[in-house]
Amino acid sequence: MARVVVDVMPKAEILDPQGQAIVGALPRLGFDGVSDVRQGKRFELEVDDNVDDTELEKIAESLLCNTVIEDWKVTRLP
Amino acid sequence: MARVVVDVMPKAEILDPQGQAIVGALPRLGFDGVSDVRQGKRFELEVDDNVDDTELEKIAESLLCNTVIEDWKVTRLP
Repeated sequence: MARVVVDVMPKAEILDPQGQAIVGALPRLGFDGVSDVRQGKRFELEVDDNVDDTELEKIAESLLCNTVIEDWKVTRLP
Repeated sequence: MARVVVDVMPKAEILDPQGQAIVGALPRLGFDGVSDVRQGKRFELEVDDNVDDTELEKIAESLLCNTVIEDWKVTRLP
């Protein structure tokens, strides 16, 4: 068994209204000094040891992320 | 300017229907060997250098996560 993390974030050129809402809310709550927030998704997978990186990339690309508007990164946890 | 990541995941004892939907979909799409998926959120923040770890923890706890059902982790990117 291996643990794998897939991080999915909106591409830099894509507007992120959820992140912008957080940036707007922070000063109202008394927190200053945060200039930008981007919100994305994090998936934690438990996979068999025979699942290779190529298959993990395919899973991320085809099921976990919308490649038109999102970037993704696959990381194996130690 | 510092870059900070806040990972927010459902607590282990909390059901995660989105993750379970992905586990169910993977074999139908031809991907075997994934036994568990948990879906959470990832926030990437740009913060001033004078924002310390205590304030970041407060931001994560009060605004980015629901502490009843979610765990969070703050990480400064190098």
